Amino acid sequence: MKYLDDDRDIRFNLLEWLDLDAVLKGEAYRDMDREQLGMVLDEALKVARGSVAACNEAGDRTGARFENGKVQLPEGFAEAFRDLASGGWISATMNPEFGGMGLPESVGTGISEFLMGANTSLGLTVLLTRGSAHLIESFGSEALKATYCERMYTGEWAGTMCLTEAGAGSDLGALTTKAVRQADGTYLISGEKIFITSGEHSLTPNIVHAVLARTPDAPAGPKGLSLFVVPKFRVNADGSLGAANDVTCAGIEHKLGIHGSPTCSLVFGLNGACQGFLLGQEGQGLAHMFQMMNAARYEVGVQGLGNASAAHQAALAYAKERLQGRGPGAAKGGAQSLIIEHPDVRRMLLMQSAYVQGMRALVSYTAWCMDMAAVSEGEEKDRWQGLVELFTPISKAWCSDWGFRVTEWALQTYGGYGYTMDYPAEQYLRDCKIASIYEGTNGIQALDLVGRKFKMQDGRPVSHLLRLAGDTAKQLADDPVLGASARQLAEAVKALGAVLAHIPTRENAGLLTILNAVPLLDMLGHVVAGFLLLQQAALAGRKGAELLSARGVDPKDRAAVRTLCAGSPDAAFYLNKVQVAIHFAHRGLPLVAAHAAAILSGETAPMEAML
Amino acid sequence: MKYLDDDRDIRFNLLEWLDLDAVLKGEAYRDMDREQLGMVLDEALKVARGSVAACNEAGDRTGARFENGKVQLPEGFAEAFRDLASGGWISATMNPEFGGMGLPESVGTGISEFLMGANTSLGLTVLLTRGSAHLIESFGSEALKATYCERMYTGEWAGTMCLTEAGAGSDLGALTTKAVRQADGTYLISGEKIFITSGEHSLTPNIVHAVLARTPDAPAGPKGLSLFVVPKFRVNADGSLGAANDVTCAGIEHKLGIHGSPTCSLVFGLNGACQGFLLGQEGQGLAHMFQMMNAARYEVGVQGLGNASAAHQAALAYAKERLQGRGPGAAKGGAQSLIIEHPDVRRMLLMQSAYVQGMRALVSYTAWCMDMAAVSEGEEKDRWQGLVELFTPISKAWCSDWGFRVTEWALQTYGGYGYTMDYPAEQYLRDCKIASIYEGTNGIQALDLVGRKFKMQDGRPVSHLLRLAGDTAKQLADDPVLGASARQLAEAVKALGAVLAHIPTRENAGLLTILNAVPLLDMLGHVVAGFLLLQQAALAGRKGAELLSARGVDPKDRAAVRTLCAGSPDAAFYLNKVQVAIHFAHRGLPLVAAHAAAILSGETAPMEAML
Repeated sequence: MKYLDDDRDIRFNLLEWLDLDAVLKGEAYRDMDREQLGMVLDEALKVARGSVAACNEAGDRTGARFENGKVQLPEGFAEAFRDLASGGWISATMNPEFGGMGLPESVGTGISEFLMGANTSLGLTVLLTRGSAHLIESFGSEALKATYCERMYTGEWAGTMCLTEAGAGSDLGALTTKAVRQADGTYLISGEKIFITSGEHSLTPNIVHAVLARTPDAPAGPKGLSLFVVPKFRVNADGSLGAANDVTCAGIEHKLGIHGSPTCSLVFGLNGACQGFLLGQEGQGLAHMFQMMNAARYEVGVQGLGNASAAHQAALAYAKERLQGRGPGAAKGGAQSLIIEHPDVRRMLLMQSAYVQGMRALVSYTAWCMDMAAVSEGEEKDRWQGLVELFTPISKAWCSDWGFRVTEWALQTYGGYGYTMDYPAEQYLRDCKIASIYEGTNGIQALDLVGRKFKMQDGRPVSHLLRLAGDTAKQLADDPVLGASARQLAEAVKALGAVLAHIPTRENAGLLTILNAVPLLDMLGHVVAGFLLLQQAALAGRKGAELLSARGVDPKDRAAVRTLCAGSPDAAFYLNKVQVAIHFAHRGLPLVAAHAAAILSGETAPMEAML
Repeated sequence: MKYLDDDRDIRFNLLEWLDLDAVLKGEAYRDMDREQLGMVLDEALKVARGSVAACNEAGDRTGARFENGKVQLPEGFAEAFRDLASGGWISATMNPEFGGMGLPESVGTGISEFLMGANTSLGLTVLLTRGSAHLIESFGSEALKATYCERMYTGEWAGTMCLTEAGAGSDLGALTTKAVRQADGTYLISGEKIFITSGEHSLTPNIVHAVLARTPDAPAGPKGLSLFVVPKFRVNADGSLGAANDVTCAGIEHKLGIHGSPTCSLVFGLNGACQGFLLGQEGQGLAHMFQMMNAARYEVGVQGLGNASAAHQAALAYAKERLQGRGPGAAKGGAQSLIIEHPDVRRMLLMQSAYVQGMRALVSYTAWCMDMAAVSEGEEKDRWQGLVELFTPISKAWCSDWGFRVTEWALQTYGGYGYTMDYPAEQYLRDCKIASIYEGTNGIQALDLVGRKFKMQDGRPVSHLLRLAGDTAKQLADDPVLGASARQLAEAVKALGAVLAHIPTRENAGLLTILNAVPLLDMLGHVVAGFLLLQQAALAGRKGAELLSARGVDPKDRAAVRTLCAGSPDAAFYLNKVQVAIHFAHRGLPLVAAHAAAILSGETAPMEAML
């Protein structure tokens, strides 16, 4: 299955739109420059298009298989993982001290999109290996760091996160896996975990699990949880692999999608011999784990984007090849037109572009905020960090919900062929669906948003966002091309502001907030994507106009513009970005006012209903 | 896989809400009464819950298999089809002269929902057998009728519709299959058809294909098409089966869902010996076929409803069993709550109910209009028929698009388990996706709506609809419970009216209409569902109030109401229907204004973009 990327827009985000210079001023990035970062993307794309994409279809059709307690991954996965490891792609943004490339997150997000778009199942192993190693780097003893970090960052060993149990998914406080401290300071781990992504496989000789468990005297609930490193094989003092560490894979799930990703049930300590090593402090397990969960939530948003973008690009390519019917300008009884000439097909495709580029702007901007937080200090650092924390649940939930919708529209673009396995649309749709569920369901993300993120830093992050969006609307209010779209944005900002101001004054504010958490998140997602797309369109419009002017083309001469675009992918790209923003502003942003009307009505029928 | 039906709401639609007496006054239904029709639903439900539902999961997991030119259907399909045939369910609404039960469509829609919800793959064979037999009944010679109709209506033989070819799906005018008239008046058929549902199987000893083909001297385009009956086996004069008729199955598709339904490539006349019989007039093939297509379009809407309702009922049952987290009223650190106590889960479930019941109101009302058209004459007949034709593309597209959305929400309700094959949610989602594509994509439905249905009868049907919706809003404007919802409906009607009035006055009215056909259809779907749900809620509210009053319960005493509802499924049902309508009015209807704003803005970015 060929992976059709959207490299051009990823480069626009990183190299033309975001203020990358501000990031590169940071101490850690002092030796990097734009050209180099562009080349890094080239290299990442080569691997993604190559061995990683090559096994994506086999990953789906063969799937991970569970045989005699072992998990077999589909053909090509081992080779692709080796390519990712040897290229340094597992830890592109991680600490060079332990083998990472130390790249900014602004670049990392593009690399992640390539991997997730080319092969989500394999991308998950990368994500989890990086994240669990980062937990060890952040909270482990020097000995643990020396043993594990570099081996994991370089892909010699893989990693997982082990949270969920059969009776404790969204409710982590109900976890029961036990950890009993031994005389030597290690812990004896026992319990059963389910839904463990990459919990067992043979990509690497060892797998390192980050496990949430409860010490015997710990309080009930989330505060009694501690975090442990639990390797599949024990590690000898010289770094070589020792005995098996009593971690048993009891089976894997059969799922709608991501068939190449083994979703495992793991039993720790079946024979009473599973050794774990404490990370950080006892009782701080969940707080520590949130470092990995936040990174993973953000990356699940990138997955939604990656699936959506790949599905969209495939549909776009198909629409440029498939003949059917006659478009508006075609002669009756004449030859069939390409389906891309049909207005409704164009509508479907531009709507896909609008949401895909909106998601990409959101996750790219979030990544850039991470970098800005990393290179700044004091209040400024807090300001960027506040946006990162506000945008994390939005990236996760908004990109997975609308990412799924985009895969649906992409499938629809094909007509009947989209429903068959001869085209990739249906796999993208199936693979994407998990993103709204794992790493905290989108309902959980919305509660995090309204319960924690609205209130953090006395509400400054959300005010900051409203100001950024409002300023964009004001700046472009009189723009001859984008003015109408800017007014749509202004309406949306006003509607969001009204909800945020009025709901807390209601008598049943608590209930209204919880009940409307998901619609509220959707409002914020649209406002953020809307203002970022308009900023991008303003820039792209200037660049497009320059290209037209340099070639002496009158922007109103449509035939001449079309001719120019046919020979200049850049001109087509810039002019399309303007239309993408206009389409999103007119077709996406009105949903914000629709949500606001619903929320402000105070309707609470779900609580009144006798379900 | 157990089929969880929504029998109670189906009965409400048929036996409590629709004016069934007006239908039963018709000559054809003179011998029927309400009690009898209720018993018919009982019997249909028994078969649906029984052998039909029993093989739905096997249908998905084993799927139809193609081996040595033959199609093997999964275990249980043959038995279930025999049960459907022997119960008369294949032709419940068809002509008793040929073995049908002659039931009103208002009842038929409930039966279809049961079959489609219990097993879509098998339901499709029923739909196609009935529809192709009806073509023969309507357009065939006496000899053809005598040979085929009863055998098909009773399920002795099955039927198909053969339209699509590799280069002609949405564009039927491009069909190339040939039909050459022979001296004996039969035709020699040759050509290849794809995507033929139930094109080959062994459920029945013969399969009768309704085939669109082109005679040698016919004009190009749709007007050159004629319609033919082409049996798999020729039929001897005594009705026994003769030689094979040179129809070859070349393979079946591998698809996202409906795995139990063989989607076949058929080759007609590979050996030059495929005999066909003309139905109706040469050159009238497409017009004749539209009888079957319109029925099928309506029934695809019922499929969307059936999948959505079954998925919703399963999710609702799960939410009443699954413990996780603590609901708003629960003590901190206490036992876990059922997930149905969480506000966001209730929101997801009531939104599912709202759209499911909205779809059911739409298709039930459409079926009732069919019956009213059948039993009336002159202008009145035209009025009902006008609504039927207006509602056909809306039923098909709105119920398939929102039906898919409901299956998505239902899956999400489960959390991680919804993504696994241990629960039925993922199969419903996959099975439902085809409904937006086949029988004319939803884009084609929208073009039919704005291109033909808006203009038919000088626009009277759409004016009729606006009046019905507006009247409902007015009647309930001051209702203490439903007044706010009625105002939402009034807003939606106003927005729809504004679009319908203003778009035709624009300079680029033609383009705006085509480009906004899909959003326009969505607006109409919401307005129709919205006014029907409010009518239902007004009735249900009265009935609920009577039940409360009879038991001396104060409607404002929530605890007492809850106790009553726990012991009275009827009370719970009626009170919930009121909340369903309120939720739809506040959460669904605002989309109409959002669409209107977008359309009235005149935005045409999809045509400006250089895609």
